[in-house]
Amino acid sequence: MKINVLTLFPDMFTPLKTSMLGRGLEDGKWALNLVNFRDFTTDVHHHVDDTPYGGGAGMVLQIMPIKKALDSLPSKGKVIITAPQGRTFNEQVAQEWAKEDELTFICGHYEGFDQRIYDLADETVSIGDYVLTGGELPTMSMIDATVRLLPGILGNSASAVEESFSHGLLEYPQYTRPADFEGQKVPDVLISGNHQKIAEWRHKEALRATYLHRPDMLEARELSAEEVKMLNEIKAEEAEK
Amino acid sequence: MKINVLTLFPDMFTPLKTSMLGRGLEDGKWALNLVNFRDFTTDVHHHVDDTPYGGGAGMVLQIMPIKKALDSLPSKGKVIITAPQGRTFNEQVAQEWAKEDELTFICGHYEGFDQRIYDLADETVSIGDYVLTGGELPTMSMIDATVRLLPGILGNSASAVEESFSHGLLEYPQYTRPADFEGQKVPDVLISGNHQKIAEWRHKEALRATYLHRPDMLEARELSAEEVKMLNEIKAEEAEK
Repeated sequence: MKINVLTLFPDMFTPLKTSMLGRGLEDGKWALNLVNFRDFTTDVHHHVDDTPYGGGAGMVLQIMPIKKALDSLPSKGKVIITAPQGRTFNEQVAQEWAKEDELTFICGHYEGFDQRIYDLADETVSIGDYVLTGGELPTMSMIDATVRLLPGILGNSASAVEESFSHGLLEYPQYTRPADFEGQKVPDVLISGNHQKIAEWRHKEALRATYLHRPDMLEARELSAEEVKMLNEIKAEEAEK
Repeated sequence: MKINVLTLFPDMFTPLKTSMLGRGLEDGKWALNLVNFRDFTTDVHHHVDDTPYGGGAGMVLQIMPIKKALDSLPSKGKVIITAPQGRTFNEQVAQEWAKEDELTFICGHYEGFDQRIYDLADETVSIGDYVLTGGELPTMSMIDATVRLLPGILGNSASAVEESFSHGLLEYPQYTRPADFEGQKVPDVLISGNHQKIAEWRHKEALRATYLHRPDMLEARELSAEEVKMLNEIKAEEAEK
């Protein structure tokens, strides 16, 4: 997969060159093309923004440098922009994007976009209901969530871990050494050696975590007969607490 | 404000040292203390993880190095960890945190946490329904959203821009030069010079964007009589399209 990013701050993208994603880059499992759209300005001061029509404080990113930067790419794939009015980014979006050959992200920075810039994008996504100084961090998060799904990026140690959202349940609790930490002990079942009991316990605790913290995820999921039974037990247990 | 971050990848945090947040660091408006909890391991190989009790693939972060790293801090403030079972991070959470003197974030990386690590935190937050290779990117996003609210971080040009979420409506469309981009023109009202009409247009278009893309935000907001009238016009206009 090739990913292009249009940004005023290409130096910010070190996190994607680190750890597993960085190794993936070195191994050619994916490619990252950072394009500074300030290089596509034509005025002597290299301005990328201007005052808003209709007045008001603040500056607005101009469409021209971004359009020229886009046009300079030999190919673009799906063009993505972040904005609060977009559909909310989630694991399903990452899975869709992971099937693409190429993606292009447009990052703004602490300013408004000229409305016409949105028309340059194929997709508008929101990363959540909060305001950031720029689009670089959410873009890196979306790239991380997408690229980690590509073949050969995650090592065995990580890929096999049970993951929240991919199975519609939160993860079950995990424990490692020490067995007793200042009186907080690992549940007995996990050191019992009984694999069936361990699997049942994990399944039930994943259900419990989801029931307690994300009941909306349970509503969106079809439960097996076994899960319905477990859930009834959990409800009785939690009611007694 | 002082922010401590416990991480295995302190080098990833360059985005926070760039642009406005970076200038804020240089000017002493906030402080960032990156702590590598691998420095608090006691074994010769500096392992921070171990196999899970109960078996299974994947590795689990141990509580000990993280606990020791936390204990090494002269003060911690509110301790925050990211996990899917936490409350969803949003602008309101950022506003709450911006009032604190000190915050401490714990970042995991591509592995599970020992369940007891969660008990070390005062707050568990979720950044959204997607999986990342590590906690560094979401932690940086949360720090960015929080620190930008501190006095003196944003310049005038940025702070005065109308912001989504802070007023319960999406932003109105912004435009800057050129007035005509390949046939896409700036709305006439914005070049009319009539300030009252411009203000009304912006208010109505903010309402329209919210109505079309985020009706949930409208339900959560009390509308003025003027807004109710505008919204009725918008509904009629959109029904005709």
